Amino acid sequence: MLGLMQDWPLLCHRIIEHAARIHGKQEVVTRSIEGPIHRTNYAEIHKRALKVSQMLERDGIKLGDRIATIAWNTWRHLEVWYGIMGIGAICHTVNPRLFPEQIAWIINHAQDRIVMTDLTFVPVLEKIADKLPSVERYVILTDKGHMPETTLKNVVAYEDWIAEADGKFKWKDFDENTAAAMCYTSGTTGDPKGVLYSHRSNVLHALMANNVDALGTSASETMLPVVPLFHANSWGIAFSAPSQGTKLVMPGAKLDGASVYELLSTEKVTHTAGVPTVWLMLIQHMAANNLKLPDLKMVICGGSAMPRSMIKAFLDMGSNVRHAWGMTEMSPIGSVSALKPPFSDATGDTRLDVLQMQGYAPFAVQMKITDDSGKELPWDGKTFGRLKVSGPAVAKAYYRVDANILDEEGFFDTGDVSTIDEDGYMRITDRSKDVIKSGGEWISSIDLENLAVGHPAVAEAAVIGVFHPKWDERPLLIVQLKQGQQATREDILKFMDGKIAKWWMPDDVAFVDGIPHTATGKILKTALRDQFKDYRFPNAAA
Amino acid sequence: MLGLMQDWPLLCHRIIEHAARIHGKQEVVTRSIEGPIHRTNYAEIHKRALKVSQMLERDGIKLGDRIATIAWNTWRHLEVWYGIMGIGAICHTVNPRLFPEQIAWIINHAQDRIVMTDLTFVPVLEKIADKLPSVERYVILTDKGHMPETTLKNVVAYEDWIAEADGKFKWKDFDENTAAAMCYTSGTTGDPKGVLYSHRSNVLHALMANNVDALGTSASETMLPVVPLFHANSWGIAFSAPSQGTKLVMPGAKLDGASVYELLSTEKVTHTAGVPTVWLMLIQHMAANNLKLPDLKMVICGGSAMPRSMIKAFLDMGSNVRHAWGMTEMSPIGSVSALKPPFSDATGDTRLDVLQMQGYAPFAVQMKITDDSGKELPWDGKTFGRLKVSGPAVAKAYYRVDANILDEEGFFDTGDVSTIDEDGYMRITDRSKDVIKSGGEWISSIDLENLAVGHPAVAEAAVIGVFHPKWDERPLLIVQLKQGQQATREDILKFMDGKIAKWWMPDDVAFVDGIPHTATGKILKTALRDQFKDYRFPNAAA
Ligand SMILES: Nc1ncnc2c1ncn2[C@@H]1O[C@H](COP(=O)(O)OP(=O)(O)OP(=O)(O)O)[C@@H](O)[C@H]1O
Ligand SMILES: Nc1ncnc2c1ncn2[C@@H]1O[C@H](COP(=O)(O)OP(=O)(O)OP(=O)(O)O)[C@@H](O)[C@H]1O
Ligand SMILES: [Mg+2]
Ligand SMILES: [Mg+2]
Repeated sequence: MLGLMQDWPLLCHRIIEHAARIHGKQEVVTRSIEGPIHRTNYAEIHKRALKVSQMLERDGIKLGDRIATIAWNTWRHLEVWYGIMGIGAICHTVNPRLFPEQIAWIINHAQDRIVMTDLTFVPVLEKIADKLPSVERYVILTDKGHMPETTLKNVVAYEDWIAEADGKFKWKDFDENTAAAMCYTSGTTGDPKGVLYSHRSNVLHALMANNVDALGTSASETMLPVVPLFHANSWGIAFSAPSQGTKLVMPGAKLDGASVYELLSTEKVTHTAGVPTVWLMLIQHMAANNLKLPDLKMVICGGSAMPRSMIKAFLDMGSNVRHAWGMTEMSPIGSVSALKPPFSDATGDTRLDVLQMQGYAPFAVQMKITDDSGKELPWDGKTFGRLKVSGPAVAKAYYRVDANILDEEGFFDTGDVSTIDEDGYMRITDRSKDVIKSGGEWISSIDLENLAVGHPAVAEAAVIGVFHPKWDERPLLIVQLKQGQQATREDILKFMDGKIAKWWMPDDVAFVDGIPHTATGKILKTALRDQFKDYRFPNAAA
Repeated sequence: MLGLMQDWPLLCHRIIEHAARIHGKQEVVTRSIEGPIHRTNYAEIHKRALKVSQMLERDGIKLGDRIATIAWNTWRHLEVWYGIMGIGAICHTVNPRLFPEQIAWIINHAQDRIVMTDLTFVPVLEKIADKLPSVERYVILTDKGHMPETTLKNVVAYEDWIAEADGKFKWKDFDENTAAAMCYTSGTTGDPKGVLYSHRSNVLHALMANNVDALGTSASETMLPVVPLFHANSWGIAFSAPSQGTKLVMPGAKLDGASVYELLSTEKVTHTAGVPTVWLMLIQHMAANNLKLPDLKMVICGGSAMPRSMIKAFLDMGSNVRHAWGMTEMSPIGSVSALKPPFSDATGDTRLDVLQMQGYAPFAVQMKITDDSGKELPWDGKTFGRLKVSGPAVAKAYYRVDANILDEEGFFDTGDVSTIDEDGYMRITDRSKDVIKSGGEWISSIDLENLAVGHPAVAEAAVIGVFHPKWDERPLLIVQLKQGQQATREDILKFMDGKIAKWWMPDDVAFVDGIPHTATGKILKTALRDQFKDYRFPNAAA
C-alpha cells in the first residue's frame, strides 16, 4: 500500500523560490570580479535567475542540454546556476585552474552548448575556443561597461543578455531524478570523471548538510564559501544556504589571506568552508598582522586533511573547526568531524585527536570498509580498508563511461582507504592508489607524510611506494625543505624513528625543490611517481 | 536526461539503522509504565526492533497491514514503531484519550490486525474488544511479571513475544512511497480523519525538522518529547532525534508538571516539545516550588497557540521558546517561529510579538492564503484568508475517503485562517469553521478569545458565531471565570472596548462552568455550538 502524501518533486529551483519567498531580503554579498563589493538578496537573485531561464529558452536550450560555467563564486554565478537548472538544463561547473587542454577536454566530453564565464577566463577561452565545436555562444558574466574586446564566438555581456528578458516566466515541474548539474572530479588520481547530479540528490544533500552536526547554518548566520562552485559542487552550499535563509558572502576571484580575512571580518561571517591551503594563507595573514575574527564560529575544512597545527590555530582563535570529508561523487559530503558523545566536551589533545579524523557519516550516507576481496572489516579504529559508501547523493555511474562502479550491495568504492572506530569516526589513511603494499601488508602514506611534516625543517612531504625486489613495494619519502632550512636524510629518519612501527619506516628520503599539486591543491602523486619511475632503493639488491 | 545518482529509497527504518551504527551508545531514557526509570540505547532499540519485525512476519503480518499502537512514549513504543515499519506494515498510533467509541471506530476504520498497548489501556480495550473484529491479537507492552489478568484475545506480553525471535533478520528495501504510518486527526472540527504517511514523507520531514531553525537538535543534545507518538506523528521527533543521534527522554504516562520537571532536570534535557496545557502545568509547578532548569535551551510549543504570558515565562526562565504550527496532515510541521532577520536579536515586546506568531515555513513547505474563491491574498501581515499548503510531507487524500482535497495547484486547505507578513511569518487567526462571518466580513474568534482571557477574572474564553438576522452571524463570547472571581457581562465588554474594531465587539457574553476540550486539549467548538444552538442575541430582532 502506498502512502497518501503529496507528489512534490525535490527540485533545485524550489530552494531559491523558497529563499525568495521567505528570506527574500536576506543578503548575498560578493567581492565582484570588476572590483567593488556588490550587495543583492535572494529575492533579486530569484528574479534574475528567471530571466536567465527565459533567455536560455529563447537561445534554444532544452531539457538535458549542458551549459558550462567557468566562474568564481559571485551572485551572478548563483543566478545562472539556478536559471540553468530551472529549465532542466544542466549546470556544468568547470574548474578554471585546470590546464587549458583539460578544460577543452572536459567541455568536449560534456558537449556544452553555451559557456558562461568570468572576465578572468576570457583569455584562456580564446586560446582553446577553436577546439570547442559544441559551444554555440559565450556569455561573459559582466556588464557592457566591462566587456573586453574578444574573439569569442557570438559573445554577449550577461547584463545585456538578461536585460532582454521581462522575467515573466515560470519554472516547470519535472521528475526529481532529472539531471541538474555536472561536476568533474579533481583529477588527482587520473583523468577527471564526470559526475551527474540530479535535482533529487542536490536537494537531499542540502537537507543533510543543514543538520546541526554538519554545516548547520541558520537564517541568523552568515556563510562564506571559499570553496568554489566549481569544486565538488561547492560542498552543496549554494543549495544549503538559501534553503535555510543563511546570508551568503561570495569571495569572487580573491582567495588570498588578506582578501578572505577582510570579507570574514567586515561581513561578520559566522561560518566558512574551504580547503587547507586557503586556511593556511588566512592563518598566516592573521598571525602576521595580529588580527582577530570574533564572529567566526565555525571553519569547515575539506578536500585534503588538515594538519593538527591548523586545527589548533583555529581553536586557539576561538573558532570551532570541523573536517568535512567528501568527494565530487558524493555531492560531496560524506562525513563531518563534529564532536559527539563521548567527545562532546572533549578538550586538549583528545579534542584535537577527534577533529583530526575525517568524522562520521550524517544520516543518508552509509559507509563500510572492506578488504580487497570485498569482505567487511571491523569498526575498531585500527583496521584499515577500502572505504565504500552508499546514499541518495552518491554517484552510481560516471557520465559517458559505460562501467558499473557499484558493488553487489550498491556501494561505491571511494578510492580512499580508512579506518572507522566504534563511534563511527572515520579516518582517511590513504588513497587506494597511493597505499604502499609492503609484503602483503598496507602502509599508510598519509600517516608517514603527517609525521614527516612534524619535523621543523620540512615544508611539505609526500610518500610514494617504489618497487622493491623483496617486498614488492617500500615507502620513499619525498621532502621539500622550508626555505633557508637544512636537514639530512638521517635527521629526518631519526625524527620519525620510534613514532611508527619499524617496518613502516621509509627506505629512503629524496629531497626536491617543489612538490606538484592538482588544481584543487592536492599532492599530485601521479606526477611524483612519474618523476621517480627510474628510482631504485640503495639498499635493494638488484 | 536523468542524473546518475544512486537509487537509495528514503525508508524510515534506515534512520534507526543509522542511529544504531553511528550513535549506538546514545541513550534513550524512559519513565516506564511499570514505574522505574529505564535506560537503553539506539543500538539496543534497533536490535529489538528487528525482533519485532521477525515476530510480526511469523504472525503473518504482510506489507500494507495495519498494526495499532495505543501507548505512551516509551522505548518499547519506539521499538515497535520501527519494527512495524521495517517490514512495510503500517504503524497506526491511536490516541487513547479519545472516547472508547471513537477508539473502536478508528480501529475498525483502519482494520488493524494487531493491537499493541500499554498496561494503562487494557481496561478500555477489554470494554470495546468485542466490537473490533479485525483485531487478531493483543500485545501488551510489558513483561511477564507485570502481565494483568485479561480477557483480551490471543494476548501476549511483549517481552515474552520478542524473546521468541533470534533477531537474525534483515529489513528489506521497497518503494519509498510505501505507507509507513497512520495517524488520525484530533477530531476538533468533526470526526477524526486518517492520514497515511509514506516512508518518503517521514524521512523528508525528519530532515526538515533537523534544520537549526526548526527543531534542530544535535548528537550532543537531549530531546524530551512530551507530545505523544500518537499525536500528530509526535511532531516527527521519533524520526528526527535518532537521525541526528540526539539523546531521547521519554516521559511515559506521567505528563504532570512535577513528573515532566523531574525528567527535564535529572536528564539535563536541552530541547522539549509539547502542547500549551502541558507547559502550563510545568510552569505552575516550577513557580510554586521555585525551581529552575538551567540546561533547557528550547521549548517547542504546538497544537494550539501559546498565550503571551507563557512565552514570557519561558524567556524569563532563560529558555528559548518557539511556536510550531502544524497538523496531522502535515507530518505535522508547517511553520516554526524561529527568530530571523530582521528579528534575530529582537528583545522585549518585539520578540514576544514574533514568538506569538506561528512562524514561517521551512524549506519543503509552501504556503499561500486565499479568499473563498481561491484567489491569492497578499502577505502583508493584515489580510487574512484560508491557509493552504503543499509539500512532500503534506497529505493529498485521507485514508478510505474518496474525495479530492487539493486545489488545482496541488495545495491542501488546512482549515486554518491566517495572515502572513512580508517576512513570511504566519499568524493563525482562526479555524475556517470558527471564523465569524459578519455581513460578509470576517472576525477572528481567536483574537477575541486572546483579548478576553487578558481580563483578570477570566480563566478561559471561547467565541462562536451565532445566527443574526441582519449580519448573518455575530460573535458570542463564552466565558469561564477563575474560581472565586467575579465579573459581569459589562465588565468584560468594557475591558475589551477600544482594543478592537467596534464591529468586532461580541454582541453578548455567556458564562459557563466549563469549556469542553478535545483529547489533545483544544477548545471543542462543535460542542459549544451544539450547546448554544438555541441561543438568540437579545439585541437581534426576530
Ligand atoms: N577532509 C578530508 N581529509 C582528507 N582527504 C580528503 C578530505 N576531503 C576530501 N579528501 C580527498 O579528496 C578526494 C575527493 O576529491 P575530489 O572529488 O575533488 O577529486 P579527487 O579524488 O581528488 O580526484 P580524482 O577522483 O579525479 O582522482 C577524496 O576521495 C579524498 O581522498
Ligand atoms: N502552534 C499552533 N498555534 C495555533 N494553532 C495550532 C498550532 N498548532 C496546531 N494548531 C491547530 O491544530 C490543528 C491541527 O491539529 P490536529 O491535526 O491535531 O487535528 P485538529 O485539526 O485539531 O482536528 P480535526 O482536523 O480532526 O478537526 C491546526 O489546523 C491548527 O488549527
Ligand atoms: Mg576521486
Ligand atoms: Mg484539522
